[in-house]
Amino acid sequence: MTPPTARRTLLRGTAATAALATAGLTAQAPTAHAAPGRPTGRGPRIGILLYDGYSLLDPTGPAEILARVPGASVTMVAERRGPVRTDTGDVAVVAERSLAEAGRLDVLLVPGAGNRGTIGAMGNQTLLRWIRATDRHTRLTTSVCTGSLVLAAAGLLDGRRATTYWASAEYLEKTFDVTYVPERFVESGKFITAAGVSAGLDMALHLVARLTDDDTARAVQLAVEYDPRPPFHAGDWRRASAELKARALKLLEDSQV
Amino acid sequence: MTPPTARRTLLRGTAATAALATAGLTAQAPTAHAAPGRPTGRGPRIGILLYDGYSLLDPTGPAEILARVPGASVTMVAERRGPVRTDTGDVAVVAERSLAEAGRLDVLLVPGAGNRGTIGAMGNQTLLRWIRATDRHTRLTTSVCTGSLVLAAAGLLDGRRATTYWASAEYLEKTFDVTYVPERFVESGKFITAAGVSAGLDMALHLVARLTDDDTARAVQLAVEYDPRPPFHAGDWRRASAELKARALKLLEDSQV
Repeated sequence: MTPPTARRTLLRGTAATAALATAGLTAQAPTAHAAPGRPTGRGPRIGILLYDGYSLLDPTGPAEILARVPGASVTMVAERRGPVRTDTGDVAVVAERSLAEAGRLDVLLVPGAGNRGTIGAMGNQTLLRWIRATDRHTRLTTSVCTGSLVLAAAGLLDGRRATTYWASAEYLEKTFDVTYVPERFVESGKFITAAGVSAGLDMALHLVARLTDDDTARAVQLAVEYDPRPPFHAGDWRRASAELKARALKLLEDSQV
Repeated sequence: MTPPTARRTLLRGTAATAALATAGLTAQAPTAHAAPGRPTGRGPRIGILLYDGYSLLDPTGPAEILARVPGASVTMVAERRGPVRTDTGDVAVVAERSLAEAGRLDVLLVPGAGNRGTIGAMGNQTLLRWIRATDRHTRLTTSVCTGSLVLAAAGLLDGRRATTYWASAEYLEKTFDVTYVPERFVESGKFITAAGVSAGLDMALHLVARLTDDDTARAVQLAVEYDPRPPFHAGDWRRASAELKARALKLLEDSQV
């Protein structure tokens, strides 16, 4: 947006330049866009499935973290290319590739959604077929929130331990041959499922470790300053009152289209 | 994606229907899309500024949380409508409105970015003018990560306490009349700044409390199951080795276009 000249003027020859450099905010040459510095193509190919009504943080939290894996490519995939709207209808992330264009993936991540989106994905045979076909070649097949219901609907979690959104745990166990485990993320062979929404961040750090090593995962954690300190302590459904749970579900329902 | 008939077939009359209802996953009528259930327009108007090279989680984490505020609208805004790409170049979120179309906002959130994006935004007078003009009418003007550098460049943080991305703290203090405070988020009048990337989640819960009340914020926290349990403990830069910090910044640099 700023022409390179203005950028250089802003920073060149000032005390700020040195400070900015120290801070890791070094002014890049205008050619940085085209520079071959980014080693794409040598790292894991990570595909995140978008479908109508997904919850925004489910794909974007893990994408932020997984994008820092050296050489990784992170691609949003959907039935068709183009914007895919979230459960609230307010926000859209762009699917860069259609299912047919996604190709082989090293990691597949299926996000969760509100009721409408989850039910839609669980009954969408095109999506489920693609998930099954893609899973044949993945190193890791993963989900966030009710994404595990979609993996289960695709038949991939039979006989496995898994987690899901707290309010969907009973449904998961009653509907599929799956043992629900109330952890932030649950690993069962190459299938790794995360609990609700924000749990995708915790799982994603684990995925980084699986794809690289613990020290790289620690560096990624620092890179995204993931030192969580929520100002309230109400995120654990096992300690929540029935009233709070009802209120949380009502807020979700009211915010979704 | 799934026709309503198939959806009903999937769920009607099975034991799963009851379980799904219990789980809060009630099958919605096909008219749910058009239902007047969503009280948009009566709650706060929240605008999140996108600009080339922002970091994906900075706007999307808070958007996920703020969207649950009763009646809230969350709108992604940018110089022009359409997809705006992140620092990695892999992912784009759609700006629903241009700066000129954004109108008055109750809450403005400015995300952070990689070096290129931050420098670009700090030198983009069109953005800075819009930020200043919008701020005149906000209840809360907020930022995540290096978004506070952009607010400072707009002249809004003079004489204030604020936070930013850990690696940019020194630059913030040396360049602007701002006192850096190493907290997850820092409140200074109506200006609330968050630390790096994931700190936007913590700040957003605080914003929910400011916009509503503590009990609603707790319900939102449970709604997004924000009970963080990262598998590593490397997110606090004050306890990180120089080697880990260098490695984190290198991972960021290598992953950005």
